Amino acid sequence: MNKIYNFSAGPACLSDNAIRGAREAILNFQDKGISLLEMSHRSSPVVELFEETTNNLKTLMNIPENYHVLWLQGGASLQFSMVPMNLIPDNGSADYVDTGAWSAKAITECEKVGGVNVIASSRESNYTNIPKDLISTSKGAYLHITSNNTIYGTQYKQYPEMSNDNAYLVADMSSDILSAPIDVSKFGLIYAGAQKNMGPAGVTLVIIRSDLIEKNYRDIPTMMRYSTHSSKGSMYNTPPVFSVCVVNETLKWLRDLGGLEKMKQINQQKALALYNEIERNNLFKSPVDQEDRSTMNIPFVFNETHISDQDFLEFCENRGLQSLKGHRSVGGFRASIYNAMSISGVSALIAAMQEFEQQNS
Amino acid sequence: MNKIYNFSAGPACLSDNAIRGAREAILNFQDKGISLLEMSHRSSPVVELFEETTNNLKTLMNIPENYHVLWLQGGASLQFSMVPMNLIPDNGSADYVDTGAWSAKAITECEKVGGVNVIASSRESNYTNIPKDLISTSKGAYLHITSNNTIYGTQYKQYPEMSNDNAYLVADMSSDILSAPIDVSKFGLIYAGAQKNMGPAGVTLVIIRSDLIEKNYRDIPTMMRYSTHSSKGSMYNTPPVFSVCVVNETLKWLRDLGGLEKMKQINQQKALALYNEIERNNLFKSPVDQEDRSTMNIPFVFNETHISDQDFLEFCENRGLQSLKGHRSVGGFRASIYNAMSISGVSALIAAMQEFEQQNS
Repeated sequence: MNKIYNFSAGPACLSDNAIRGAREAILNFQDKGISLLEMSHRSSPVVELFEETTNNLKTLMNIPENYHVLWLQGGASLQFSMVPMNLIPDNGSADYVDTGAWSAKAITECEKVGGVNVIASSRESNYTNIPKDLISTSKGAYLHITSNNTIYGTQYKQYPEMSNDNAYLVADMSSDILSAPIDVSKFGLIYAGAQKNMGPAGVTLVIIRSDLIEKNYRDIPTMMRYSTHSSKGSMYNTPPVFSVCVVNETLKWLRDLGGLEKMKQINQQKALALYNEIERNNLFKSPVDQEDRSTMNIPFVFNETHISDQDFLEFCENRGLQSLKGHRSVGGFRASIYNAMSISGVSALIAAMQEFEQQNS
Repeated sequence: MNKIYNFSAGPACLSDNAIRGAREAILNFQDKGISLLEMSHRSSPVVELFEETTNNLKTLMNIPENYHVLWLQGGASLQFSMVPMNLIPDNGSADYVDTGAWSAKAITECEKVGGVNVIASSRESNYTNIPKDLISTSKGAYLHITSNNTIYGTQYKQYPEMSNDNAYLVADMSSDILSAPIDVSKFGLIYAGAQKNMGPAGVTLVIIRSDLIEKNYRDIPTMMRYSTHSSKGSMYNTPPVFSVCVVNETLKWLRDLGGLEKMKQINQQKALALYNEIERNNLFKSPVDQEDRSTMNIPFVFNETHISDQDFLEFCENRGLQSLKGHRSVGGFRASIYNAMSISGVSALIAAMQEFEQQNS
């Protein structure tokens, strides 16, 4: 049997180190004689696990002192509501950029809370690019972007500059968090579901600037308020302990690998190799504007229609290359090559594309 | 080293079968060659896992056809808000019984949404009993109870009867779900965090009668609406896949054990043995009214104050009996003896109580 390479868009492949750490935690966490799954979140090993995970993230991402790290539940989808509920003043509004289905969902949820100014959209080009020269309005409490668009394979290469000192960026980084160093100080809030680049499903990372935590503009559910979670070290209620443990294993793996600058180099190397093959190969093309192509999610389609998508998917499947089917709104294929996808996995896909070309020319 | 018995109030001990299933899922889920942690929630093994888990629960709990089972995130704490947001009409109210800290939190969150009629409370007796002869108001959309009170060790032995056909019970069953058979048809909605009697932290069970799903009384966040999740088989967004897998392992264990009637007998046997020892032992007493004593969480305190709690806790710790410290609002000790706590674990605690009595008399 071939080694399996899992190109799923999320939940997605994890490093061997993270899987190994997860397995050990299940059997006997830190040699305490019981499984992490059974441990009270109030016990010192679990409290220390959360502190360690937060510290590892702060070091890795070089997060400034005046930011809080929260480990929550509900995914980016719950953040679509929590962000405006916590950050938009009464009768206020926020600026959003629409770069795809996930941006659109964020906009829909914000509309239930306050005004939305959609300052730019790439909808008319079927989301194949990232709008440029963005200028936030003076009214918006923040400017919300989706840093990487999993479905369409677009990614911001440069974040928008804010027009005044009070404004700040808010970013959904679910699908490219930890893929490269970023300047956290440009953001008021960053959120990300773990299940693409950090760990298994079930935990959501929020990085929030301290002055934004206590806004209290409206009477919202206690669980939806950032201050609830920041004041209790993400333990206001029982947190998703095991998922956080796997995130910590991923963070340690990234640290040992050489940190985010090194990870960025590897990601660029993997993406470049695959984009080069898509360009070179007569069978395939990329639907995405060259300058906005994602290093994480790489959609590609057939140049001609005489071969069925299913043929190539089966060809790959037989080689252990899994979950390459494109999203239904783009079609074709999508290789999600997050941090944990190895260079050898990308090489195996490239080899399959070349072999398939030979068979079909 | 002694075998470790974990009396934590939650996250709590799991059956060996559940731990074994969890470990196998981490290594190689259903022999698919990859870890469950890496699998897309859209993949057929994961979709089938959710269907199987739901079906196993329906069979075990004998859930009528007109109920939906949802696997959500956010714990009971998020349900405190979701329940009134979904179920109370505009300008409407709901009835609540206050039997402790968790009931009180549910009441606080409901007050943000609609009127609350607290029809009974055991606060004045420091929550050492369950109010009897409850009569719901004619105004309340539902009557909310906390079926078992983890902190105080009280439990409903009989659920309230509703005064009219339109009214229904809503229950937070986080700490006694699956501990005994119940008549689900008496309830409009049942919710429970998994981390006491079902699995690890990170997943929340909701059982809801179909006619209550589509009420749509107000414009609430999409993630807070039950219909969002019921229409997508709990996969509107990425669900906590691994936690659901461990719940399924627990359900299979319960099935193989003989089901909930058998589990109830075992739970009664364990609880009776421990309560009998508390009564017999000259050192200890129960703070709870006899008729309302929980089969799940058993607080006990010293009769006299000349021995420090810490002495007994260390005595137990040295025998591998862990997490017996009582909640700060009750003091003393608390043995949480959920489904997965074995009879031998309870016997080991009883033996320790007897030995400690001999040493201190």
